[in-house]
Amino acid sequence: MLGFEIEKTCGSARLGKLRTAHGVVETPAFMPVGTAATVKAMFPESVAETGAQILLGNTYHLMLRPGADIIERLGGLHKFMNWDKPILTDSGGFQVMSLSKLRTITEEGVEFRSHFDGHLCKLSAEISIGIQHQLDSNITMCFDECPPYPADRRYVANSTRRSMRWAKRSKDAFIDRDGYGIFGIVQGGVHVDLREESCHALTDIGFDGYALGGLAVGEGQELMFDTISATTPHLPQDRPRYLMGVGRPSDIVGAVLRGVDMFDCVMPTRSGRTAQAFTRHGTLNLRNACHKDDPSPLDSECRCPACRNYSRAYLHHLVRTKEILGVMLLTWHNLTYYQDLMRSIRQAIKDGTFEEFARGEFS
Amino acid sequence: MLGFEIEKTCGSARLGKLRTAHGVVETPAFMPVGTAATVKAMFPESVAETGAQILLGNTYHLMLRPGADIIERLGGLHKFMNWDKPILTDSGGFQVMSLSKLRTITEEGVEFRSHFDGHLCKLSAEISIGIQHQLDSNITMCFDECPPYPADRRYVANSTRRSMRWAKRSKDAFIDRDGYGIFGIVQGGVHVDLREESCHALTDIGFDGYALGGLAVGEGQELMFDTISATTPHLPQDRPRYLMGVGRPSDIVGAVLRGVDMFDCVMPTRSGRTAQAFTRHGTLNLRNACHKDDPSPLDSECRCPACRNYSRAYLHHLVRTKEILGVMLLTWHNLTYYQDLMRSIRQAIKDGTFEEFARGEFS
Repeated sequence: MLGFEIEKTCGSARLGKLRTAHGVVETPAFMPVGTAATVKAMFPESVAETGAQILLGNTYHLMLRPGADIIERLGGLHKFMNWDKPILTDSGGFQVMSLSKLRTITEEGVEFRSHFDGHLCKLSAEISIGIQHQLDSNITMCFDECPPYPADRRYVANSTRRSMRWAKRSKDAFIDRDGYGIFGIVQGGVHVDLREESCHALTDIGFDGYALGGLAVGEGQELMFDTISATTPHLPQDRPRYLMGVGRPSDIVGAVLRGVDMFDCVMPTRSGRTAQAFTRHGTLNLRNACHKDDPSPLDSECRCPACRNYSRAYLHHLVRTKEILGVMLLTWHNLTYYQDLMRSIRQAIKDGTFEEFARGEFS
Repeated sequence: MLGFEIEKTCGSARLGKLRTAHGVVETPAFMPVGTAATVKAMFPESVAETGAQILLGNTYHLMLRPGADIIERLGGLHKFMNWDKPILTDSGGFQVMSLSKLRTITEEGVEFRSHFDGHLCKLSAEISIGIQHQLDSNITMCFDECPPYPADRRYVANSTRRSMRWAKRSKDAFIDRDGYGIFGIVQGGVHVDLREESCHALTDIGFDGYALGGLAVGEGQELMFDTISATTPHLPQDRPRYLMGVGRPSDIVGAVLRGVDMFDCVMPTRSGRTAQAFTRHGTLNLRNACHKDDPSPLDSECRCPACRNYSRAYLHHLVRTKEILGVMLLTWHNLTYYQDLMRSIRQAIKDGTFEEFARGEFS
């Protein structure tokens, strides 16, 4: 059971507090991705310094390496990776589809080959929920299938209904305890009636929160926003809503405007490894020669170490020489940018000015 | 001009303080290597936290990328890389020999092709000293040739005498100012008479400190120690002595025993990138499966973040998944190990117990 209080609304946008056994998360919240029990190129203390209050871990990666048994024996994922704040884990369903080979989907679950070493593995609602329990995840996600995009309506309908049956089995397999919870995942592609049907199926089962899955898979921002707008009214008002795998700053602002509370995305961390920086004045590619003797900081309004202590010229030099410190600094900066964005969003909802805020320019 | 005071001796070992415009260095000192204006995978604040009081920068790398003019325009190497403590730079001579292609050595200097992009470059005493001035290095090194090992005596003799002529030109080109200095480099291979001749040539010119070059190039520890023992008596007592590019912990302890005050080596940082860890109980390879569910820290007596906050199992996992955090933590640990070693060496000299200390087991 997870506590969730909405403190203020502004149109459909909500300012809230999610209470877990490992602390409180202010919403709207952005969760940095810690796929393999580490937010790539970051010390966990630095992740906390950016303002992040919750991380996402990937069940698929962790079950394969190092394995859930090892993490459980070592005291759970928080202790293993030295992060004592809340953790949400996905179910592994999405990665099975996007990363593994030789998948067989049946009513029971999925058989697949590890993309690391090819060995044969199984995932099902019961296995996924069991692994997330072993990891000691604060927020367990239901096991589901994320259908490809585009896919024909019949495929999406069948897949969505099977995911709803898996959602019931996930809920049944979940061992409830104080400060821990399980989220259902709304599917249905871009089909509004299937989304509505999925919302009803999930709310009938009853979850601590509701995620929107199967979006940001190629449908484009407008269709994603339309789908969110058509979905959130069918979800309980008093439970958190999480848009999975999203997104760019403008995606996040638009989704908050449509009633979403939580986000995760590899965008800030992955961009940090490819020399991209988010700033208040647009994105920069630090590889570009125009930065080579620029003494100014990345973003003069940013308080992160990359902006406080270094020039664009130095960051350009690190990128060009492939120095790890370049990745470390740009990742730290991008995560700070995202957390600053979330802080501004929360402040604007509090001030009742979020609709105006959302009309601003975002990358 | 650099201040240097010897506070205590214990046999030939010396406890000292080297004063520069950017602060004091306690000797014997180990300098982490910051080749391309970064100690690989470390924030400079973290380098300072390990106890390092001085860094080494590589003239060869910095002249090629980003170029000395850019660093000078941006306020010098300290500001560029956000390190406000002392910096020593090498002359580029060693890297020209070990890294670049198509070298032509003449009395004037060396012509070579950049190992990055093949463009034709020159280095000479005057050019090297000029670049080190642009970098604002606290300790400038003379331009020299490091002869290969093994090499015939005639080659070594000719090379050493040319390096001594370059030393004179280096000293003449050096612009002296308070808190800055230039070190001569003793050459002569493993030939004791050539080493002695080189010492006399350099002391006749007069330097702020004296380095031993051309060692740890394959001659083995015993011959290296014998060469050091035969060299240090011919150097001024009141000036610091620096053994270039050395080495393993046992090399350092043995060299301090023979009167050396300063060291640099890529060993701790490079080992951190190849899963090797130095501990008080020998070296560990974190890639080995024996660590995979070991909850104990790397080294229970170490105060670094890798040892305080993580298990060997977690470090093993990071190494196996090629996560950057693994490199970050192991590098931090190894640099801490080296600085702890230097602190113990200094304490033992202070306590008059260094000869006993040096009989211990070191990696």
